[in-house]
Amino acid sequence: MKNTNKNTAVLLLHCPDKQGIIAAVTEFININKGNIIYLDQHVDKAEKIFFMRVEWELDNFLIPTDKINEYFQTLLAIKYEMEFQIHFQNQKPRMALFVSKQAHCMYDLLAHYEAGDWNVEIPLIISNHPDLEHVAKKFNIPYYYFPITKENKEEQEAKEMALLKEYNITFSVLAKYMQIISPEFIKAYPNNIINIHHSFLPAFVGAKPYHAAYERGVKIIGATSHYVTEELDAGPIIKQDVARISHKDSIDNLIRKGQDLEKVVLSRGVEKHIERKILVYKNKTIVFG
Amino acid sequence: MKNTNKNTAVLLLHCPDKQGIIAAVTEFININKGNIIYLDQHVDKAEKIFFMRVEWELDNFLIPTDKINEYFQTLLAIKYEMEFQIHFQNQKPRMALFVSKQAHCMYDLLAHYEAGDWNVEIPLIISNHPDLEHVAKKFNIPYYYFPITKENKEEQEAKEMALLKEYNITFSVLAKYMQIISPEFIKAYPNNIINIHHSFLPAFVGAKPYHAAYERGVKIIGATSHYVTEELDAGPIIKQDVARISHKDSIDNLIRKGQDLEKVVLSRGVEKHIERKILVYKNKTIVFG
Amino acid sequence: MKNTNKNTAVLLLHCPDKQGIIAAVTEFININKGNIIYLDQHVDKAEKIFFMRVEWELDNFLIPTDKINEYFQTLLAIKYEMEFQIHFQNQKPRMALFVSKQAHCMYDLLAHYEAGDWNVEIPLIISNHPDLEHVAKKFNIPYYYFPITKENKEEQEAKEMALLKEYNITFSVLAKYMQIISPEFIKAYPNNIINIHHSFLPAFVGAKPYHAAYERGVKIIGATSHYVTEELDAGPIIKQDVARISHKDSIDNLIRKGQDLEKVVLSRGVEKHIERKILVYKNKTIVFG
Amino acid sequence: MKNTNKNTAVLLLHCPDKQGIIAAVTEFININKGNIIYLDQHVDKAEKIFFMRVEWELDNFLIPTDKINEYFQTLLAIKYEMEFQIHFQNQKPRMALFVSKQAHCMYDLLAHYEAGDWNVEIPLIISNHPDLEHVAKKFNIPYYYFPITKENKEEQEAKEMALLKEYNITFSVLAKYMQIISPEFIKAYPNNIINIHHSFLPAFVGAKPYHAAYERGVKIIGATSHYVTEELDAGPIIKQDVARISHKDSIDNLIRKGQDLEKVVLSRGVEKHIERKILVYKNKTIVFG
Repeated sequence: MKNTNKNTAVLLLHCPDKQGIIAAVTEFININKGNIIYLDQHVDKAEKIFFMRVEWELDNFLIPTDKINEYFQTLLAIKYEMEFQIHFQNQKPRMALFVSKQAHCMYDLLAHYEAGDWNVEIPLIISNHPDLEHVAKKFNIPYYYFPITKENKEEQEAKEMALLKEYNITFSVLAKYMQIISPEFIKAYPNNIINIHHSFLPAFVGAKPYHAAYERGVKIIGATSHYVTEELDAGPIIKQDVARISHKDSIDNLIRKGQDLEKVVLSRGVEKHIERKILVYKNKTIVFG
Repeated sequence: MKNTNKNTAVLLLHCPDKQGIIAAVTEFININKGNIIYLDQHVDKAEKIFFMRVEWELDNFLIPTDKINEYFQTLLAIKYEMEFQIHFQNQKPRMALFVSKQAHCMYDLLAHYEAGDWNVEIPLIISNHPDLEHVAKKFNIPYYYFPITKENKEEQEAKEMALLKEYNITFSVLAKYMQIISPEFIKAYPNNIINIHHSFLPAFVGAKPYHAAYERGVKIIGATSHYVTEELDAGPIIKQDVARISHKDSIDNLIRKGQDLEKVVLSRGVEKHIERKILVYKNKTIVFG
Repeated sequence: MKNTNKNTAVLLLHCPDKQGIIAAVTEFININKGNIIYLDQHVDKAEKIFFMRVEWELDNFLIPTDKINEYFQTLLAIKYEMEFQIHFQNQKPRMALFVSKQAHCMYDLLAHYEAGDWNVEIPLIISNHPDLEHVAKKFNIPYYYFPITKENKEEQEAKEMALLKEYNITFSVLAKYMQIISPEFIKAYPNNIINIHHSFLPAFVGAKPYHAAYERGVKIIGATSHYVTEELDAGPIIKQDVARISHKDSIDNLIRKGQDLEKVVLSRGVEKHIERKILVYKNKTIVFG
Repeated sequence: MKNTNKNTAVLLLHCPDKQGIIAAVTEFININKGNIIYLDQHVDKAEKIFFMRVEWELDNFLIPTDKINEYFQTLLAIKYEMEFQIHFQNQKPRMALFVSKQAHCMYDLLAHYEAGDWNVEIPLIISNHPDLEHVAKKFNIPYYYFPITKENKEEQEAKEMALLKEYNITFSVLAKYMQIISPEFIKAYPNNIINIHHSFLPAFVGAKPYHAAYERGVKIIGATSHYVTEELDAGPIIKQDVARISHKDSIDNLIRKGQDLEKVVLSRGVEKHIERKILVYKNKTIVFG
């Protein structure tokens, strides 16, 4: 789906499951001359919660764009106790890219970006190491280097957060950024920081998962992209993938095979986020197709 | 590989890695007029250990079958500090099948057995529940029912072990046998009890892994066949496989999709064991192709 | 989803895509006091066709069961140019099982059936060989043996079709039934004959696909369950799965690994059919989750 | 396996299967004080052909490097009717990269190259379009643009082949190079031109495989890296991988998901070629682990 600056609205919502929600929401759009181009919904029967994503064209929509939120709140959200977000696809999400020393995920993301695959802006790259500045330069994206020590971490993160504000960043991607983000930072961007963990979570939480996988003698390794929450590697999972290994694979091989997983699993998670196809509820994701 | 009662010997060995081991072993066989029909080897470079599986035809082999072990020990094993086993493919392994209430793995194993896919005998089935006796009857295999409580566990296991002796059982398969085996039992059959765990180990050790997977919101589920050791679900992994799930899958769906994994992962692990293609070293397996 | 004889109706429909279809259908159900327990829909944007599956509880539904079809036709189907089917989950589909000499798919299907996994009746088994009668006996299902030659094929198939009528069969499953079904037979059961083909279609159509895969040197093999149409192995695909192979795998190994795929791919296709989750349009399937 | 300029020799051979080959080869190396660091072998039982890859350290090897070929030929190859190649890992293979308009495979290969993952030199990039020159510039690699028409094809390919000679190119990689290579070119580099085909071969040979896959309604798509031979998309397969799709996926989605497969499948095929782990025999590959 090439970045086409479509003039559409995306509504993401969840609420207690009741009769008539789909009918009510689609009628709200149809009656106001919105043309629905996407609708998907899900009912979590255990939790009795209804989830929905609708996208419609705004060209002939009767409600002015800046009033849609208010009208939807008044006419539907209160009645059905909905939590909802409305996004406009012609307002591109703005992404900050965090890297450390490994370039494979960075290259994969930037190649997608340069190809125009995604409806996103990447105005800056942040790193705790100087190593990958040359890659940022290749793509003409400013590279901010913040070396981080125990002592200066708070101060450096404050500067990073100021930068994110300055650049109007809406979400961040940790592309093998080997530095734990502090709770204050995370709280400022709930469900808007995406990390790639190089294991099949919840197996092998924390550092050196490939070494741990090798030690345990598993026959399959994995990678997981997830939203960052305060508990390490425990946030809502977005995408996972796996690859077969055998006794022949050294730790170096696991790392190599794992990097192929990491880049794909991270890029596809970022893509779903950019497309506003992810809903988070109780530390789990609904990822629409 | 249909059960053909081939007149071959299988040598499985490991030893410190040195120059010339393959040459020495293959010469031992060639010089005595054995025709090698399979050879695979592996060097664990981290541990500096050499692993090998060789199979050769015995028809013209100069060393009498009952002397091969002694000759190999004297001529090669001492020199290279080898640990080794020699199996004869015309001596079928004898397998005890343990079940509880779920039949899917049991049916898959017995369908393979009845089709003659494997070089094995299954002379008895043991259960802690009466539920699956009707399946055993379908295949004309004696079904021994040992209800197990906290109080009688030791006594019942003693009876089970006596039965295994009586039937000359060489290895046991726990096909969704929902009862923990005691350490004494395990010690009596080192690397000869195969279990199926319904998760992608080491994720979700213990009871109710599908419920835990659902709770965690993973996007892929798995199953693991492994040798049973004293630490629960921590023994050497033989086979693993996975299936994709999504937010649409209820716990019931996870269980259903998982059962398909379980039966295939268990049967393929059992097959490798029967073929004597598994070496265990330091809680990890080498599974030859 | 254990066979629970739910008192629900399943509506499957497709029609030209227009505004308001979901709203109209869900209102039809809600207003008549049906409680929707499942709704999924899909828009084929290339063809501009809307597809939908809805399931609702009939307990308090105001329209009598035997009138739902007529009312839906009158009130909605004509207006929206819908093609639709309505099924009642307490009317179990009745399945005929066709087999030849290989038992692995047969056992997998019958193990599911015996476990009560599916809302189905399997009142008869038909074969062109006597080999698997002993399996049918294990499950107490009548086994009809119709040896087929070029000369008697028409006559024998006529007998088979008479049997299917006698047993009120709604769909048939060819579980490694190695005999081509004639066009007359296929026409009598459109989208109601499910076959398993032992390759990743459209690769390796026709006989001996594992031999062809071995010859071509592929690195992955597959299996495909599909509805039977007049063109061989060209009907709508329901499920596919694959397994990795390598140069080490002999044709025998491909067959062995392939059988694991075949049984799972067939059983999961049959399951979707029984759950009435498959819509066919222009030789392709929509398989709802 | 980072590019370490190891001082080792790699011997790849095949010959009629006989007793004693492994012993003879390993003795040849051991007796001359070569330390074997890798040995893998395979017997094709259908063809009765033996395949082997051995790698050993040259530091103390008694036979001078430039004589190894001659000695091996004289002492072993003649006796066993071997076809063999000997490579020295400190002589890096030299790779030409061919591209057209899509950059995803190109970026993936160049990111590996820049990271030093592979023991290879990429001294030039050749294209039939000017579009990706900016990517070549990012990596400081000369970009040669040869627009190709029916009329000038022979002439342009002659120039390309002259360039490959000038740069001492040992193998070429067609990274989504959308131009058929002529037989003369292919003959000049047997088993040294690697292509990525965006389907699961042999399904969907030729142009527009994703459109064909969409049309057929398959549930899994794939990608294949293979050596180029004169018959289109029919050369020896090196690597394949697949991804699940559903009725929800538009052709655009297939292309997107397919690109992730393409880059990984091509890069891993190229890696195996660089590592000299591929043997080709009768249009099939043996790819050692």
